[in-house]
Amino acid sequence: MSEVKSKYEIFKQKAHIVIYGTNTVAGRLFDLILLGLILLSVVLVMLETVKEFDGKYHTFILISEWVITIFFTIEYLLRIITIKKPINYILSFYGIIDLVAILPMYLSFFFVGTSVFTVIRALRLLRLFKILNHPQFSSQSVHLRESIIASRGRILVFMYFILISCIIVGSVMYVVEGPEAGFTSIPVSIYWCIVTLTTVGFGDITPITPLGQFIASFVMIMGYGIIAVPTGIITAEIAKNMPKTKESDKKVCQNCGNSEHLLHAKYCQDCGSEL
Amino acid sequence: MSEVKSKYEIFKQKAHIVIYGTNTVAGRLFDLILLGLILLSVVLVMLETVKEFDGKYHTFILISEWVITIFFTIEYLLRIITIKKPINYILSFYGIIDLVAILPMYLSFFFVGTSVFTVIRALRLLRLFKILNHPQFSSQSVHLRESIIASRGRILVFMYFILISCIIVGSVMYVVEGPEAGFTSIPVSIYWCIVTLTTVGFGDITPITPLGQFIASFVMIMGYGIIAVPTGIITAEIAKNMPKTKESDKKVCQNCGNSEHLLHAKYCQDCGSEL
Amino acid sequence: MSEVKSKYEIFKQKAHIVIYGTNTVAGRLFDLILLGLILLSVVLVMLETVKEFDGKYHTFILISEWVITIFFTIEYLLRIITIKKPINYILSFYGIIDLVAILPMYLSFFFVGTSVFTVIRALRLLRLFKILNHPQFSSQSVHLRESIIASRGRILVFMYFILISCIIVGSVMYVVEGPEAGFTSIPVSIYWCIVTLTTVGFGDITPITPLGQFIASFVMIMGYGIIAVPTGIITAEIAKNMPKTKESDKKVCQNCGNSEHLLHAKYCQDCGSEL
Amino acid sequence: MSEVKSKYEIFKQKAHIVIYGTNTVAGRLFDLILLGLILLSVVLVMLETVKEFDGKYHTFILISEWVITIFFTIEYLLRIITIKKPINYILSFYGIIDLVAILPMYLSFFFVGTSVFTVIRALRLLRLFKILNHPQFSSQSVHLRESIIASRGRILVFMYFILISCIIVGSVMYVVEGPEAGFTSIPVSIYWCIVTLTTVGFGDITPITPLGQFIASFVMIMGYGIIAVPTGIITAEIAKNMPKTKESDKKVCQNCGNSEHLLHAKYCQDCGSEL
Repeated sequence: MSEVKSKYEIFKQKAHIVIYGTNTVAGRLFDLILLGLILLSVVLVMLETVKEFDGKYHTFILISEWVITIFFTIEYLLRIITIKKPINYILSFYGIIDLVAILPMYLSFFFVGTSVFTVIRALRLLRLFKILNHPQFSSQSVHLRESIIASRGRILVFMYFILISCIIVGSVMYVVEGPEAGFTSIPVSIYWCIVTLTTVGFGDITPITPLGQFIASFVMIMGYGIIAVPTGIITAEIAKNMPKTKESDKKVCQNCGNSEHLLHAKYCQDCGSEL
Repeated sequence: MSEVKSKYEIFKQKAHIVIYGTNTVAGRLFDLILLGLILLSVVLVMLETVKEFDGKYHTFILISEWVITIFFTIEYLLRIITIKKPINYILSFYGIIDLVAILPMYLSFFFVGTSVFTVIRALRLLRLFKILNHPQFSSQSVHLRESIIASRGRILVFMYFILISCIIVGSVMYVVEGPEAGFTSIPVSIYWCIVTLTTVGFGDITPITPLGQFIASFVMIMGYGIIAVPTGIITAEIAKNMPKTKESDKKVCQNCGNSEHLLHAKYCQDCGSEL
Repeated sequence: MSEVKSKYEIFKQKAHIVIYGTNTVAGRLFDLILLGLILLSVVLVMLETVKEFDGKYHTFILISEWVITIFFTIEYLLRIITIKKPINYILSFYGIIDLVAILPMYLSFFFVGTSVFTVIRALRLLRLFKILNHPQFSSQSVHLRESIIASRGRILVFMYFILISCIIVGSVMYVVEGPEAGFTSIPVSIYWCIVTLTTVGFGDITPITPLGQFIASFVMIMGYGIIAVPTGIITAEIAKNMPKTKESDKKVCQNCGNSEHLLHAKYCQDCGSEL
Repeated sequence: MSEVKSKYEIFKQKAHIVIYGTNTVAGRLFDLILLGLILLSVVLVMLETVKEFDGKYHTFILISEWVITIFFTIEYLLRIITIKKPINYILSFYGIIDLVAILPMYLSFFFVGTSVFTVIRALRLLRLFKILNHPQFSSQSVHLRESIIASRGRILVFMYFILISCIIVGSVMYVVEGPEAGFTSIPVSIYWCIVTLTTVGFGDITPITPLGQFIASFVMIMGYGIIAVPTGIITAEIAKNMPKTKESDKKVCQNCGNSEHLLHAKYCQDCGSEL
């Protein structure tokens, strides 16, 4: 009996290394298979909504979906079993994503044909963000994340300003243009203003009166100038956080301790002693 | 009698603290309620213009509007009464906004159904800019404002250049394309040119002749390159004004407490004592 | 006789000061009147093309045009007479613009109703670029012009790359989408590619096949990333050319000659002596 | 016999200099003619697809195409003959392009009327990228290429993030809007999301429900803020790689002639002699 238990313990340990680890061959292979299945399942969700494709391959898609869902279910249960504190995993961001990714298929037994379920499965994609924690990318993404976090305050102040401006301009355009030009209500006018200010310009709603076109021109030129502000904020932040020369490349003078040298310098610029 | 007056004086003092101050609990609560009411009133103005919503809840909207207007009226009168120099407040930017925000409802007694009044109430939103003066945001918004003000001259020169270019290109396109393609007059052609150069591209007016499309391509590529200029101006300004040293690197003078020093400074710039 | 000639000489001198100078009251007034007339004439050219306006005020516009043209003619003749080397002025950029600005009205005697002439008059606007040479703006525009000139090489290489990419993508889209989707010929497809890559997106031509939409998505994301390049080039150039502190604000230590100080520094950061 | 061979050898040498070299007059002329023929042939490919033009000048285009193709064929053979290791050239990027550029015309004997062949000839344009290796441009393009390569990691992480976001938002919009608004399948919704996020905004598919418009507004404002990130990355990189000192400020070592020194350097970094 205890042997059985100890075998189960050994299995748990091995499974833990395969599922959570990335240092062993088996662990890496597991990660790759998982990555492939996530991508495959998302592609299936997408193709299922394309009528011509769904018509031909409906059964194939359905079977594949079930195979993938069962695999994900086993993986989810293994993750819970093989970890020391399962509750931490279950309540973590990726734990909830993992659960949300498998539930819809089971729920589709009871609630037939709701397309919402189809799409919730696309949330499996969120699991792909895990890749950004991979050592190869993490230094890059950490740098970007830090720059964006540092700019957060300024960006928010800017967004606040933009939003209030859009509401005011939207209200004015509603009065100037009116329902004939498609500005059927203030919320729709605000939507138009956001579409215009961000230079997207769908063209589903466009001003037709001279005054409306004049205000629109003004909004566009402002938006053109204003696009510079968030760019400026983030650029300045990224440039500031950027490693000027890598730490390992810095040459420090043994004589005077000066560490400010060009990359290929052979002699200290301050005291002339060899580096 | 004097007791009554002194009681009134005490009320005025207390009201002043609540309305103008932000340091007491009551003052902060008052600010929050005001903020909530402004947002609510703006949402109501917006929803009033949505036909389906207005049809169902017309009476509810009307009553809410009046309650909010009466609250804003009392607040406006209290602001005048409790301040030492009322005329300064009345003629200030926010004083005028506060008045403009309550007038339309009263005027709607006499002039029925003018949608202009509906929208003027949306100007209450301008009061929300006050939040940017809040200590939490002010340092951020001051930095942005300074960068934009410092770039003002260059941005204006640039805008001047863009505007003249748009008028010239607009005139040329009017001749090339003509009314059949929607270029019905030079002002409309200029409007099209602004829409194109700012990369908004509504698509309500588009060139149809090969020559027109060639000129449009040229304008777009120029606009694409030109978008770089205001971005460059503001980015350079923001990067310049940005505090360069991290908090931990800042040298603080032991003598006078000044923490603004260059990285390699050996003596305090304010009192001359060694760092 | 010689007195008459000398009177004429004096008139020429005075006229020269008024027309070319900007230091006397009369010279400045002349510049302002000229500026006003240019703007007025351009507005007239624009309004002439608006049917409703032209219908009502045709005679008024015509008379105004003639008055302005005669004024510009006199100004042009005076500029030639009062300058020492008239040929230099006549062949200069602004000299040609001045001539082009008055010719169309006279030519309209012989060639009736050609809208091209109407629009050539809009070229008078080019005279407004002269304002950028005004001392108040010149420092700003010089800085911008220098940054753009310095980036010229890189921008051209970039534009060359973009153009070739557009021709190749345009050719591919012509094969993929074909005439049914509006891609009627390769030049039109290239036009579409430029519209898309510059993020203008008119929507007059849009891909309808899945493959076409996939390629379009790729082009858009590339364009989105690529927009960064000219911005980066110009921003880096502007930031580099930007005066870090104005020359006049630089504090130089009398003791050790160090000129690197913060704006409000009172003591030298290197030797501690008072600035 | 050996004389003939030696004559052939001399011809090979001379041809090599003309075809591969750019230092002799003949070499430069050859390059210019080649450049002109490439441009001409691409223009012909383009005009061939314009119906009005092809109708009139079909024979002219056909003959020109054959003349150019024969010239390119001779050039291709000469390049193979005159180089020491022909296999290196044949398998190089430009070698394959050169072959691809001439094959379609010959293949058009056997497979008549396939427009794909017409367009493959447009790939001749890729040969124009060779110009970027020209000394005049290479320093500029090297700087750009290095900056883009250095930003590669960050840009890829960013693109990955954008793409996953687009798939998720696209799936949500498919559920919210549905086929009536043009969101006929998830792939189409993702296409719409990319069109919107990159601020292209064709307008062929636009949200019509209030919730859809709200989500679209959110996506657009995000896209507006997000456009800053790649710009920031590349700008910071370009600014970092940019030569910081003006020519006149450069300190040149009297001993070894090295001109790469920091601004305040007192000793040459290469040979250690005093500057």
